[in-house]
Amino acid sequence: MEKLVLIKVGGKIVEEEETLRRLLNDFAAIEGYKVLVHGGGRSATKLAAQLGIESKMVGGRRITDAETLKVVTMVYGGLVNKNIVAGLQALGVNALGLTGADMNLMRSDKRPVAEVDYGFVGDVKEVNSDLLASLIRQGIVPVLAPLTHDKRGHLLNTNADTIAGEAAKALARHFEVTLMFCFEKKGVLRDEEDDESVIPEIDRMAFKEYVERGVIQGGMIPKLENAFQAIDAGVKQVIITRASEIHQGKGTRVF
Amino acid sequence: MEKLVLIKVGGKIVEEEETLRRLLNDFAAIEGYKVLVHGGGRSATKLAAQLGIESKMVGGRRITDAETLKVVTMVYGGLVNKNIVAGLQALGVNALGLTGADMNLMRSDKRPVAEVDYGFVGDVKEVNSDLLASLIRQGIVPVLAPLTHDKRGHLLNTNADTIAGEAAKALARHFEVTLMFCFEKKGVLRDEEDDESVIPEIDRMAFKEYVERGVIQGGMIPKLENAFQAIDAGVKQVIITRASEIHQGKGTRVF
Repeated sequence: MEKLVLIKVGGKIVEEEETLRRLLNDFAAIEGYKVLVHGGGRSATKLAAQLGIESKMVGGRRITDAETLKVVTMVYGGLVNKNIVAGLQALGVNALGLTGADMNLMRSDKRPVAEVDYGFVGDVKEVNSDLLASLIRQGIVPVLAPLTHDKRGHLLNTNADTIAGEAAKALARHFEVTLMFCFEKKGVLRDEEDDESVIPEIDRMAFKEYVERGVIQGGMIPKLENAFQAIDAGVKQVIITRASEIHQGKGTRVF
Repeated sequence: MEKLVLIKVGGKIVEEEETLRRLLNDFAAIEGYKVLVHGGGRSATKLAAQLGIESKMVGGRRITDAETLKVVTMVYGGLVNKNIVAGLQALGVNALGLTGADMNLMRSDKRPVAEVDYGFVGDVKEVNSDLLASLIRQGIVPVLAPLTHDKRGHLLNTNADTIAGEAAKALARHFEVTLMFCFEKKGVLRDEEDDESVIPEIDRMAFKEYVERGVIQGGMIPKLENAFQAIDAGVKQVIITRASEIHQGKGTRVF
């Protein structure tokens, strides 16, 4: 199967001109089939504040009421997505910005109200990757915004890590997929205080050991659990790295 | 050649829930290949006001400074476009929202500063319709936002009528195109005071006569000149009608 790299970058990277410029250059330099998934939370919080809408977060997740949904639709689907697309086009990358509503790419269900009412937040139920795969083969580079739809006329806010994972799993039917999560650190660290203590490779057994020994803890545990879940679903490997190192083969490889 | 209908609707229609709902139902009922082009000026003006940005218009055209460009990118490319896409998907229409930056669909040049400095406004220079035509043949229904790009990393605000005309002309190489402009009236009127006085058909000779006799005047003259220009460039016919009548074959047919 042909290879494809799917890269997820968080809001911080794509929302500052200088880091965005560098990311787009690095991304453009990657050869072969590729997909970019972006966040945009900081810009959403900023726009919400300017409009007098309070941003409520629970466990790092945004509570999305009707007004907040409008804000994230504007910021993720419009401002951030289209600026990335225009920036990539300038670098000769034939980018196409998409939400989950476009071409019915990702259908989700509004998350049921349990302990927390997350509001207009979607849990992905179905990914239609056939047309996407065919576009990629025609040279198109999809740029995915963290929005889905319920196929009943409503957009839903969806975590960008989830979008990346679901897209990677669906594209694994068409390509040999490397899923790359960019964050602030160079990879999964042995020692949180030492930025250079990157663990180069983790398989499931090593992960279990690291967790038992308390080396890996906190927010990195669900991140890695998601990574293994993607691998179980056919993704070749998951790389956790820093945005500035996406085409250097560094970071932590999860397989 | 196979037929395609390209419909341009103004902001007023797509920005009110009830008229939007009706439009999407009418649009969904149209058989065969179709494209929707939308405006969104009222929402842009509203958001700009909420953000304390003054909307400056000259001759009905928006002066687009850097802050206003962000606003229209959010409103046209995000809020309006993605809500239309989600609404159409709910009706079984496989919609795909696009700006001119996506797939390098429409490249424009920033309008040179003459008497008026329009700011970040683009005049269309190049339309890449091959991939678009192929997507349409695969069942995709493009929904075009009034934004283009300069292929050097900048989005540009572009009049929705212009987007519709340019897209229609480019698609005329692939389809027999009917270009439909929706506005508040039922068509071109013989008597501005009489809403029922629709002129059913106008060719170039009739147009000249109507203008000489003062029957057609004001803003309708450039609208019709654009229509004839589209016909010269290969568009089969242009229909000027009311949004509520898009699938009734009413309005004024320009040919």
